Amino acid sequence: MLSTTERTRLRRGKHKARTDRADLYSLLDAGMVCHLGVVVDGAPMVVPTGYGRVGDTLYLHGSTGARSLRAGGEVCVTVTLLDGVVMARSAFHHSVNHRSAVVYGVPRVVTDERERWEGLRALTEQLAPGQWDVVRRPSAKEMAATRVLALSLEEASVKVRTGPPSGDEEDHGLPVWAGVLPVRQVFGEPEPAPDLAPGVEVPDHVARRVPKP
Amino acid sequence: MLSTTERTRLRRGKHKARTDRADLYSLLDAGMVCHLGVVVDGAPMVVPTGYGRVGDTLYLHGSTGARSLRAGGEVCVTVTLLDGVVMARSAFHHSVNHRSAVVYGVPRVVTDERERWEGLRALTEQLAPGQWDVVRRPSAKEMAATRVLALSLEEASVKVRTGPPSGDEEDHGLPVWAGVLPVRQVFGEPEPAPDLAPGVEVPDHVARRVPKP
Repeated sequence: MLSTTERTRLRRGKHKARTDRADLYSLLDAGMVCHLGVVVDGAPMVVPTGYGRVGDTLYLHGSTGARSLRAGGEVCVTVTLLDGVVMARSAFHHSVNHRSAVVYGVPRVVTDERERWEGLRALTEQLAPGQWDVVRRPSAKEMAATRVLALSLEEASVKVRTGPPSGDEEDHGLPVWAGVLPVRQVFGEPEPAPDLAPGVEVPDHVARRVPKP
Repeated sequence: MLSTTERTRLRRGKHKARTDRADLYSLLDAGMVCHLGVVVDGAPMVVPTGYGRVGDTLYLHGSTGARSLRAGGEVCVTVTLLDGVVMARSAFHHSVNHRSAVVYGVPRVVTDERERWEGLRALTEQLAPGQWDVVRRPSAKEMAATRVLALSLEEASVKVRTGPPSGDEEDHGLPVWAGVLPVRQVFGEPEPAPDLAPGVEVPDHVARRVPKP
């Protein structure tokens, strides 16, 4: 179960709340980019960045110089998956079908080299499943240039909207089309790097992400 | 030209910065959801929400009770479009091709009824172009329940990553596939609401968003 704190309790649209921890995991596992919110000089800053999950921990990474990864403060990490445009008969009831997770906490700067390694593995695999086993792993110099943060998934909320538009009784007879325009993210044909070594083919773990025509 | 303030100046990956205001507009016009960052009790909160643009103003809306729309404070609005997974021969050089815009400012609560109307029109059209002209417009009661915020696009930055993976000279000979796996958002077949009035067909402005098979 997801814990409910004052800030993870949904105030509006309570029926959209999910409280099963498995919903949080499957949503996070399906995303590729999160939006990381931090406070800098009293003002919010929101940056898109990668992430990876290992159990109840979310890993973030970046340059050791990044403002968004400075230690000590609270962060908010939001992952949003867009599933459809909800079109109603009235402007007011337009919406989007989506799944979103919001995680709050004070991230820990990971110093243990083994955990740093596992965090980077999770980050790489989140973006490109199957890659960690085939690529050159981080060098000592690369490890030194990278900050890895760990954020507990203890304080998190999940919100899901599915289904057709809601609307007011009196609008039902209007001759306006209403429904859902589904949205999904798809992968296109892999584009090899121009300097690819001769004879290197697209590996299965990449090819299988592309839908068959 | 986009102005450069201390917080919109890119510190790393400076070659990814775009300074033409037209790049900001086209990026914002291509998105459907932004991530709105605010500070609540000293901590960041990031929520996905809709938006609409009119000239140099970004409009946001929501319930009059929403914590994220409380007046007075600084906000950060980020729009991210994912264009591809960048796969390198090394874990370190994995990345994503993307376009992102970050806008900072103190939004103004719109009180002028005509501007509120124009803001809601922009929000509806951003999500579902062509809808405003066919749907039932907001009622007085709906208008009263809705807060509309206006955020100036004066302080904004745009970051774009395109092209193949970068990498280190010494990795070039590795027998590892490298390249870009393109990512795009596509619309599926429209799903009519179950209570749709008989004989109402999917209108052109919706149908044309779905790619032909």
